[in-house]
Amino acid sequence: MKKILIIGIGAGDPRQVTVEAIEALNQVDVFFLLEKGAVKQDMVALRHEILRRYIKDRSYRVVEAPSPPRELAPADYLAAVDDLNRDKQAAFACMIDSELGEGQCGGILAWGDPALYDSTIRNVAAISARPGQAIDYAVIPGISSVQTLAARHRITLNRIGQSIEITTGRRLKEGWPAHADSVVVMLDGEETYNRFADHEIEIFWGAYLGTPDEILIAGRLKDVVAEINRARRGARETHGWIMDTYLMRKV
Amino acid sequence: MKKILIIGIGAGDPRQVTVEAIEALNQVDVFFLLEKGAVKQDMVALRHEILRRYIKDRSYRVVEAPSPPRELAPADYLAAVDDLNRDKQAAFACMIDSELGEGQCGGILAWGDPALYDSTIRNVAAISARPGQAIDYAVIPGISSVQTLAARHRITLNRIGQSIEITTGRRLKEGWPAHADSVVVMLDGEETYNRFADHEIEIFWGAYLGTPDEILIAGRLKDVVAEINRARRGARETHGWIMDTYLMRKV
Repeated sequence: MKKILIIGIGAGDPRQVTVEAIEALNQVDVFFLLEKGAVKQDMVALRHEILRRYIKDRSYRVVEAPSPPRELAPADYLAAVDDLNRDKQAAFACMIDSELGEGQCGGILAWGDPALYDSTIRNVAAISARPGQAIDYAVIPGISSVQTLAARHRITLNRIGQSIEITTGRRLKEGWPAHADSVVVMLDGEETYNRFADHEIEIFWGAYLGTPDEILIAGRLKDVVAEINRARRGARETHGWIMDTYLMRKV
Repeated sequence: MKKILIIGIGAGDPRQVTVEAIEALNQVDVFFLLEKGAVKQDMVALRHEILRRYIKDRSYRVVEAPSPPRELAPADYLAAVDDLNRDKQAAFACMIDSELGEGQCGGILAWGDPALYDSTIRNVAAISARPGQAIDYAVIPGISSVQTLAARHRITLNRIGQSIEITTGRRLKEGWPAHADSVVVMLDGEETYNRFADHEIEIFWGAYLGTPDEILIAGRLKDVVAEINRARRGARETHGWIMDTYLMRKV
């Protein structure tokens, strides 16, 4: 039997790691990392810092493989995600089969919460479902960027008695979600909030949440949209990458 | 200047507390608790256990007040919530004004994540906005029951590229949310999932998440609805209270 722990490590601040995650980190013999190339070196360094900071009196190995390339503007989005996940599964399966011994524990670190727009759980489920495999796995939740956004802006995600929609930039392009009150947007690479700049909407925006580079902007969307665009483009230029999340609601 | 820290302490497992929350707990001079009466003694004990376990080499005080009574079946739901929050604000304001000195730090513990269906942030914002007050406050996110539900069932909250709706039992009574794919339901005291038992829906249900009494049931809703009803009613009888959360999606 092999065991895999999928460990949520928070949005970017090593202090967001839970005691449960620290206990899990200290059970792992081999960590499996998929590296995403130069643009995300900051985040890779942070992952190593979390291992250094929290693993005590125990030796562990880190096995890395390059993250499979992602098609940037696929004609068929779902098919492209399927392809990417199949490639990731193959990469993880190869590392696990060759580097994790019987009775050993493997660890995969997930930014934020593994339950939110992350493929790790699905990929490990697929790997463990292969015929002839004896792989058990467990999931440890982590603080997501959405929660960090709300905490830093000191707001609740919902209004009293109202619902919350968590969606992607891709879906938001189709229009304001019907009946939605608070709309949280993740994975938006295209500043989709601009489409609603002439609506009566308030926005709470954040980038690099939990890290020393964190940026927060909030206000009436029409008042702050230019400021967000400027901050977003400038930071992307400076860092070579950006990860942002935002909450919008009608006022 | 007084400072208030609103600290998310996870869904029920003391190991879900983050390092950031532990650092916050260790800055607090006075904790303010609103006690909810006999039915939730288990949760009160857990709160004290978290203080005992994580606060080191520091003395602190705990000030408790009874939680204001909640109208059980109000004619006007929003008005009743407003009334309740005003009563809670008065209770917190009274404790803070009389028990927290200048330059001291107060702490309020929130189950799960303070950003999700919790009134603490709103109440502290209102208290600090009173004229003549110099109260600063900060929010520390915590692992919510929703994340614990997903981790224990080893699922993601979203399907690939799809959105998530987080809603209340009260709103779900109005019908299946338009366009929603994954629907997470909180604060459902009335087994509202029963309304969808003849739809093609899968459910991932959990109660007392993160605690030793945790119950998990998953499957096609029509196959497991009777089992969930039985488990829910039995546990409520045994414990005197129940807190449950679930995720449903069309299959």
